[in-house]
Order: sequence, then C-alpha cells, then structure tokens
Amino acid sequence: MRMVDLIHKKKQGGSLTCDEINFIVKGYTSGKIPDYQMSALLMSICFMSMDKREIADLTLAYVNSGDRINLTEINGIKVDKHSTGGVGDKVSLIIIPLVASVGIPVAKMSGRGLGHTGGTIDKLEAIEGFTANLSRKQFISNVNTYKMAIAGQSENLTPADKKIYALRDVTATVESVPLIAASVMSKKIASGADAVVLDVKVGSGAFMKSLDEARELAQTMVEIGKSLGRKTIAVITDMSQPLGLEVGNANEVKESIEVLKGRGAYDLCTVSLTIASYMAVLGGAFPDFDKAYAEFQAIVLSGQSLKKLKQLVQIQGGNPDVIDNPGKLPQAKYHIAIKSSESGYISAINTESIGVSAMLLGAGRKNKDDLIDYSAGLTMVKKIGDKVNIGDTICILHTNLENYEEAETMARSAYSVKADKPKPINYIYEVIQ
Amino acid sequence: MRMVDLIHKKKQGGSLTCDEINFIVKGYTSGKIPDYQMSALLMSICFMSMDKREIADLTLAYVNSGDRINLTEINGIKVDKHSTGGVGDKVSLIIIPLVASVGIPVAKMSGRGLGHTGGTIDKLEAIEGFTANLSRKQFISNVNTYKMAIAGQSENLTPADKKIYALRDVTATVESVPLIAASVMSKKIASGADAVVLDVKVGSGAFMKSLDEARELAQTMVEIGKSLGRKTIAVITDMSQPLGLEVGNANEVKESIEVLKGRGAYDLCTVSLTIASYMAVLGGAFPDFDKAYAEFQAIVLSGQSLKKLKQLVQIQGGNPDVIDNPGKLPQAKYHIAIKSSESGYISAINTESIGVSAMLLGAGRKNKDDLIDYSAGLTMVKKIGDKVNIGDTICILHTNLENYEEAETMARSAYSVKADKPKPINYIYEVIQ
Repeated sequence: MRMVDLIHKKKQGGSLTCDEINFIVKGYTSGKIPDYQMSALLMSICFMSMDKREIADLTLAYVNSGDRINLTEINGIKVDKHSTGGVGDKVSLIIIPLVASVGIPVAKMSGRGLGHTGGTIDKLEAIEGFTANLSRKQFISNVNTYKMAIAGQSENLTPADKKIYALRDVTATVESVPLIAASVMSKKIASGADAVVLDVKVGSGAFMKSLDEARELAQTMVEIGKSLGRKTIAVITDMSQPLGLEVGNANEVKESIEVLKGRGAYDLCTVSLTIASYMAVLGGAFPDFDKAYAEFQAIVLSGQSLKKLKQLVQIQGGNPDVIDNPGKLPQAKYHIAIKSSESGYISAINTESIGVSAMLLGAGRKNKDDLIDYSAGLTMVKKIGDKVNIGDTICILHTNLENYEEAETMARSAYSVKADKPKPINYIYEVIQ
Repeated sequence: MRMVDLIHKKKQGGSLTCDEINFIVKGYTSGKIPDYQMSALLMSICFMSMDKREIADLTLAYVNSGDRINLTEINGIKVDKHSTGGVGDKVSLIIIPLVASVGIPVAKMSGRGLGHTGGTIDKLEAIEGFTANLSRKQFISNVNTYKMAIAGQSENLTPADKKIYALRDVTATVESVPLIAASVMSKKIASGADAVVLDVKVGSGAFMKSLDEARELAQTMVEIGKSLGRKTIAVITDMSQPLGLEVGNANEVKESIEVLKGRGAYDLCTVSLTIASYMAVLGGAFPDFDKAYAEFQAIVLSGQSLKKLKQLVQIQGGNPDVIDNPGKLPQAKYHIAIKSSESGYISAINTESIGVSAMLLGAGRKNKDDLIDYSAGLTMVKKIGDKVNIGDTICILHTNLENYEEAETMARSAYSVKADKPKPINYIYEVIQ
C-alpha cells in the first residue's frame, strides 16, 4: 500500500477502506508517512469528503491510537457532552452540578488547549484552591459518591487526532465536516462515554457559519455515534453572539452561579437546561425531554443545583465560600466601558472579534504555555436586539493590562447598530437524534 | 503574509496575487515554507485551479528561481518544441535535423529524468561516441554554423519547479492543468526560446486521457506563452498507442533514420512533419503550414534531412557510420515474440503498460541513478486496427535480461482484440494557436 495512491484515490472521490484508513493513521502517527503526504490527503478530504463508513473507521482509528479510559467501575449510564466551541460558552460549568443532582453520573474529562478564554477546568481554577488533578481512583470514587468529577484529559487520549489536528491547523484543513466529526467523536468514545449530547454551535463565533453546515456536522456526528453503539443527540444552538453576558474565566463562573440561582441570562439558561435535559433523558432519569426540562427548572429554583456546584468545588479542593460570595473571585484592576456612538438597535455582533478581544485582555491562551488571567474578560452589556442611545455602555472590558487599545478596538468594531429592530434570534435551532 | 492564509484563500477559490505567488515560490525554494504547507496548497490548486494571470505569474516565478539561458548570440528566431510525453515519442530526434535543414536554428536543451525509455539525449547516446556535453561556446557555435545542437539542461534551470515537481510526484498533485502548464512553459522560457511548438499528447499513454483535458492544457499553455511574449502553437496528437513501431532507445534511433529515409510509420511521419512545419512557420522560413509541410516532404525524399542527422551525430562526437548502417547500434541478446491468442482486430493498446514493459526490459530509469540498456525495448508489430489471427506475432520484446516474465505479461495484457474493426484513429486532433 502506497500513501500516494491513497491520496490519488481520495482526490478522485474514492472511498478509503478500513485497512487503508488504519494504514494512514498508524503510518502518520508513527512517523512513517510524512507530513506533506498527510496534508495533501487532508486537503483532498476537505474537497471530496468521506462517507459515513469512512468517518466511523477514522474515528475508531483515532480511538485506537491511544488510551481508552475504562469507566466500567462507575455505576449507571455515563453521559458526556461536547460543545463545538464558541465565545462565552460556560454550559459545562452549569450542567455538571445540574445533571449530577438528578443522579446521573457526570465523569467529565476536559482539555485545556488554546482559545479565547480558558477551558472548563481553567474557569473552575479561577476558584481559589480548585484542582482537576485527581487520581484515577479518586475520580471514579467521586463520581460514584457524588455523581460528578472533572479531571484533565489523559495526555495519551487520541494522539493520532492530536498530531493530525496540529497539522490541520497550519494547512487550512480544519474546516471539514468528516475531520471535525471524527476528531470530536473519537475523544468522547476514548473517554468512555456510553452516550453523548453534542452542542453544535452556529453563527459568527462558531466553526459552522450557516445552519446547513451545522446540520450536516450534527447529523454526521449523530450517525457516527450511533454506528459505534453510543446513543447520541445533537442540539444546534446559537453562536451569532456570545452566550450569556460574560466572557472570561472568573466572570463566567460568576454568571454560572447566577444561572443556578435562577437569575441567569435567558439564552444561557435555555441552552444549559436543554443540554442537561437531553443528557438526563439519555441517562435514563426521565422518560422524555419535557419532563426533564420541567424538573431541572424546579431543581434550579430550589437551590439544589447551586448546592451541588458548591459540593463540586469543595470535593476538588476549592474554597466553597466563593459560591456564596462570588466577590471573592479574582477581580481585574481596570474596567473600561465601551459606549455606543450611534442610536438604534444592536443588529449583529462579530463574536469572533469579541473572542479575540478577550484573549488580548489576558483571558485565553494564544500559545500552549501562556498564563491565563482569570479576572480578565468582557461583559456584554448589550446584545442583539437591544436598544441603544448614543453614549450608552454596550460592553465592559476587564483587564490588568494597561495596554488594552487593540482589545478595545476589536470589541468596539464587533458591534453593529441599525435603525430597525432586528428579528429575534433563536437560541435552539434544531435537535437531531 | 502567512502561508496558511494563502492556502485558505486558494481553498476558497480565491485568486493569488503576483506578490503572493512570489512569496510562495521563493519561500518554498528557500526552505522557509515547509513541504506540508506547499502540498496542501498544491492540492487546493488541483481542485480550484488558477486563472490565466496566476499561471503566468507562477511561470515567471519558476523562471526567476534559477538560470536564464541567454541565446541572443544565436542568429535568427530560436524555436523550441516540447512534448507532454508519451511512449515511443522520438519526434525530437527527427525534427532537429529536419528543421535545421531549412535554416531555422534548433538550440535543443533536453532533460534526462525518469521514464519508460530514456530522453532524447539518452537515445542519441545509443550511438557510439555521441555526447551532449557541449560547452556553452561550442553549443552556440554549432547552432550558428550547423543550425543545430543538443545539450543537457543546466542543473539550475527552474529549480523551484524541480523542487515542487518532486513534491507533486509523491502527493498525487501532478495532474493539474495550471501546474503542468507553468512547469512546461517556465522551462521553455528559461531555456531562451523565442517561440514554442507544443506537442500535447492525448490517450492511454499520456497525462491527458481525454481530448477535453488535452485541449484545456493546450489552450492554457498557448495563452501563457503569448502573454509572456512567445509565439506559441499547440498541436494535440494521439497517444492512444505508442507513436510509430519502436519503443526503446537504439531502436527508436533506427526508426527515426527510417522516417528520414521516407520509410517511417505513417503516424510518426505525420506527427513529426506537422511539428516541424509549425516550427518552421514560427521561425519565419515559410509563409504557411501547407507550404512548409510540402517542402519537408520533399526534403525527406531528397535525403537532405538524413544527411543533416548524420552531421549532427558527427559534430557531437558520434560515429556517423551508424546512420548508414543502423545494424551497428546496440543489439539485445533476446528477442521474445508475443503471439495473439485470439483472432480479430486490435481494438485498443494500454500504452502505459507498454511503457512499463519497456522500463522493466531495461530501456528506462525508475530511479535517478539507474543505467539504461540502449538495446532494450519493444517493437509494436501490430497496432490498433490491424487484423490478427491466433498465433500471429503482435509485439516483440528486446532485452538482455533473462527474467522478462513480468515485462512479457505487461505487454501481452496491453493488447485488446475484438471481432469488429475499430474506427480509424486520428494522428492529429487539433491545432491551437
């Protein structure tokens, strides 16, 4: 078998066999297939796509390239969730205590990676003392006892996908439904999930800019999940503006606390309760979505899920007082209000620009070894559809940096104002199951 | 400027600016841009193509990457010819003496490279003593005195194309009209040609398998040539079977002698005289194609062009007696006749397989340092449209190897026989100017 022939086959629109896919993934991971052949193949896949069987085979090849986490010692159906990523996405912070509070085990493994803000673990680490460094034994024990735990991903989880992703990043081959689908699903399967709820984001802050693209990705991942024996549901949610009002780390924790007090922004509450409800249905706690959703609303109002978050913080070494007094979270030195120069309605927000602004303020990592400033970020005072007058504050930057001009310019330019009130935005577009 | 952004631009179908193309070609040649980004870009070009302006810019970037041969000391219009490559293509051997005999300077520079048989220089080196190692001074002087010379290409001719071609070869990105066009035209322009006749082959033994593809390549190269100030004509010729009857090195020289005696195979004579005629028209020796063609027929019959071939051999150190006694050319030890197992008409010949068979017999180079056996090759006793009975010889293998089974199988499997007589084949499909 020669790699050049397999590239040619894919370039002509052919379907790669299981053996061919294993040859490619093993060969590339071991260094026998060079980067330049792999990138040519990846580009062919961007143009010619892959069929469902090929994507399932690629997913399994990724899974088999590294460790497979064994969660069989955990009682019950392990339901995982995954978001394709966006700005202000703090849903995992909210659903861990929420889903655990109805008795479904949430064994969350989370990467750190690069991004506009930190990942879920980074955000929780904004809480003094919080750690995600749990031993395997502790992790399993916490999930069995408290129905929840969050830990960093094994270094050796889907190493083939890691190596290929790094190559995709520098060869303009990230945007490809089969490649994204295999990457996402392999991590979930290698992490030991029995069932998965996928939060597929669509809009200016997401990989998928149109509903058609998002639907294609969602359908593909649901089919892959099912074909590999995992109950899978995808929820297509809005990312045409940041989710909720806060973008950062400490301030996203604070906003999550608000949601669990029943006082969160409506878009964030809707998305969080929807994802939690589908997880609870897949985990067998409720017969249908509507019953789950109603129960989660009651749980939030009762304060039960906020207590569960406090418990999570406590069992993982964090200071639980922070949950009662979010003022104890790290605070930035500077708060810069951006004011509207026009009157009218917010018609659009370039969410990608808000994300870059957050990173420039110190909230995210550009390079692997960058340190995160937990207190940095933005508050989206105005969102799409809101009325503004000249001089109204539309957004507040939080930072410890004195040189925030670029971040300010990015955030300011992200907002569009028009005279007419725009159509309301859906929070949930579709559910694919 | 970042390479990943340029890959993305081309992937989206954008047109690369002149500056961007120079950045890419210089960056890749100098090693600043890695192979894996270049191969991703090349694959994008295979799918999204390039517009005429981009191809012209790419051609010039290739030209400017290395030496430019200065032929201004040669009197007259320097007309070059190029074939896109096929099996049994000995046209250059024939046109050098033919075109020189009407006073047009033929300053031929030829690569060696890899292939089913050797290149034009390898073929001439089958003649005892022949050398293509001419000094620049000798080369120019020979062309001015005798109107002809053939020498190896400068090592530093279009090095960017050489490096990119090597990458294309292992990443399934050879088949791309813009990339082929820029590669061909850059070599001709860097070699100092004032005008170019392109022999674009189409059929089972050519890169271009369909007339549509061949036409697209031909039109593209003609436009590039014109836009860069070179009169350019492309002739689309048949490669659905080997050209003429001989495939190899010494035997192709022998067949070329036959053509210059007026006794060659009709397809080979037609293609050779057509190419020569367009060269002579571009060189200003004749007002139109028909007059040139008629004159070349007369020159062949007069024996004048055969004398010119003898002169070429003599001035480049070869034994001129070989032209009068082709029996002095290297002879193979074994001659294996392949006989037909069916009765009917030859309906098709897989020309690629005949080429591979020739290489297996020793006639070509698979790797750069392989030695060529000048005496090895095949004689195509039967060609498409010929009637055969069971037991008739269809093809003869010539080799010094005792282990010729694989070559025999390849050659045998190349022939298809059907009961009905096939439609006659065109030798010349189209002329684009």
